[in-house]
Amino acid sequence: MDFRISVPDQSLAPRLQQRIDQKTKPPGALGRLEALALQIGLVQGTDAPELRQPHVMVFAGDHGAARAGVSAFPQDVTWQMVENFLAGGAAINVFCRQMELDLTVVDAGVNHDFGRRPGLIAARLGPGTANYLERPAMDAETVQAALARGRELAHALAANGCNCVGFGEMGIGNTASASLITHCLTGESLATVTGRGTGLDDAGLARKRALLEQALARGGRPAGPLAVLAEYGGFEIAMMAGAMLGAAERRMLLLIDGFIVTAALLAAHAIAPAVLPYCVFAHRSQEAGHRVQLAHLGADPLMDLDLRLGEGTGAALAWPLVQAAVNFLNEMASFESAGVSDKGC
Amino acid sequence: MDFRISVPDQSLAPRLQQRIDQKTKPPGALGRLEALALQIGLVQGTDAPELRQPHVMVFAGDHGAARAGVSAFPQDVTWQMVENFLAGGAAINVFCRQMELDLTVVDAGVNHDFGRRPGLIAARLGPGTANYLERPAMDAETVQAALARGRELAHALAANGCNCVGFGEMGIGNTASASLITHCLTGESLATVTGRGTGLDDAGLARKRALLEQALARGGRPAGPLAVLAEYGGFEIAMMAGAMLGAAERRMLLLIDGFIVTAALLAAHAIAPAVLPYCVFAHRSQEAGHRVQLAHLGADPLMDLDLRLGEGTGAALAWPLVQAAVNFLNEMASFESAGVSDKGC
Repeated sequence: MDFRISVPDQSLAPRLQQRIDQKTKPPGALGRLEALALQIGLVQGTDAPELRQPHVMVFAGDHGAARAGVSAFPQDVTWQMVENFLAGGAAINVFCRQMELDLTVVDAGVNHDFGRRPGLIAARLGPGTANYLERPAMDAETVQAALARGRELAHALAANGCNCVGFGEMGIGNTASASLITHCLTGESLATVTGRGTGLDDAGLARKRALLEQALARGGRPAGPLAVLAEYGGFEIAMMAGAMLGAAERRMLLLIDGFIVTAALLAAHAIAPAVLPYCVFAHRSQEAGHRVQLAHLGADPLMDLDLRLGEGTGAALAWPLVQAAVNFLNEMASFESAGVSDKGC
Repeated sequence: MDFRISVPDQSLAPRLQQRIDQKTKPPGALGRLEALALQIGLVQGTDAPELRQPHVMVFAGDHGAARAGVSAFPQDVTWQMVENFLAGGAAINVFCRQMELDLTVVDAGVNHDFGRRPGLIAARLGPGTANYLERPAMDAETVQAALARGRELAHALAANGCNCVGFGEMGIGNTASASLITHCLTGESLATVTGRGTGLDDAGLARKRALLEQALARGGRPAGPLAVLAEYGGFEIAMMAGAMLGAAERRMLLLIDGFIVTAALLAAHAIAPAVLPYCVFAHRSQEAGHRVQLAHLGADPLMDLDLRLGEGTGAALAWPLVQAAVNFLNEMASFESAGVSDKGC
């Protein structure tokens, strides 16, 4: 698949920086928010950016390997949590309500029949991936289908007027999948990028690491993001990667959540590096492998709240900072307009 | 002055923790927000806390030493920025509007006649402090008056139904005052706690450090917070300390901003250590001395955004996280209510 992502035009940077510096504050005093305002201005190609219809998309999928014991929770929790999202009772619902973010859940392949439901997009690639301990998680055609469907979803959001999308996920076993993807795409050792996920104890972590070593012994380290997604991916991870690339094609701002979302971004970035300037990294997760991913991408997230929940919760929590960056740029007075003496006057 | 601050009753902690752990998420997965929810519950003495009429108070005052060159900006900027606050054009205005926080500006002693103005509380102790390079910034009676007036302001907020207050400040020269206070109350070297403030260059920083050494050579390191405030304080800093203590007396939640606000808290804490459990530390400022203050208080702020603007901007930006902590506690489903299998089931 050929993603056409334009590189943001840097020629606007001096004008944006000047606008930031004329605001009634010492130069640089808003720290990270100033860099963020500059980034958003460049992404949108304007010195008066706007955030329209911000949206969180939660991609859900099941993992064949979950039944082998890579997670602290049983596989049924995936569909039960999707039901919880649809009923409005999960953390991501609470935070999206508070931040006034639209929320859509995408069934990328959960082992459950939800029927037609408001707020749920049926994009099912199957009842869950195959168990990568025995065979590849999916075939190459399914990876392509996942990317294409994700791209379509992002394009549809853009067509509805949204220009800012946060990514979240749900899938029992998907930190294990993310660890394998991260190992393959960064080269960091599997042990370093394999953590406790939703809360494994020491014995559970040792078991997870042994199982993932076993998976690697079978599938090896495939060359390239598509082969990696086929071997170890999740439907939700592959579809999210497609949505990220599709969103960047539409020059949307991407809010990146934690370890699993960043695994999807590693794949998206390996497919099309131009996705990166569109990304805002919301937070640094407790999951150790997230640091490896962030270092690989040269990213420094806005917050560090020791989150390890997923669902896009970190992206939702970082949303007010993104909005604040745009607001100060558009709403603050300048030294001149406010009649405030500039430094050294 | 005798501040009567009750220590939050810890006996509610197990019930609060149980409520947090029954939410549909792995235990601890919301990281810092979980500790925050517990703290707010204990402060309010309930497992269903509420944040009512959140408010930011910005205390403004002028500093005699500003005319000696301790700041990158001229003293007139204090009143000009107060005008900017009243006109709604400063960063704190933008962020309070976005976060739906009420904003009040307190003239604790600015060198300007504002007249009566909506949104401005006249609590003027004079046209600015004396120059501490020559004599104490204020006398002991003025410190008492500042504390008393600050306390009154906090009590009035509480009487109007507010139970959460963020603190901010404006005063050209007040990072210098905050450095002297921090040196005196923590014992850390003056050089370590003296930084660039709103943006001094190397020569300006060297000059500021030399001036503050000169002030110390004159005034020494007075014993106790009241004497320190008298010697080196600002009207806005002393009044803010009183407001913090008054707010804690009313069991309000205190949102602590950056270096100058934390200097006021150092004084408040030295007067009544029981203020501390009521404090939420919003962010870690770029100003180096802030780390020293935070270490002294054993505090670990929620965010690190390289801010160094003051005005309470960090407190306002952290507000959604505080609200999110309360919201997840009150609104998230439990494993039981949502029909989600708990770990190991």
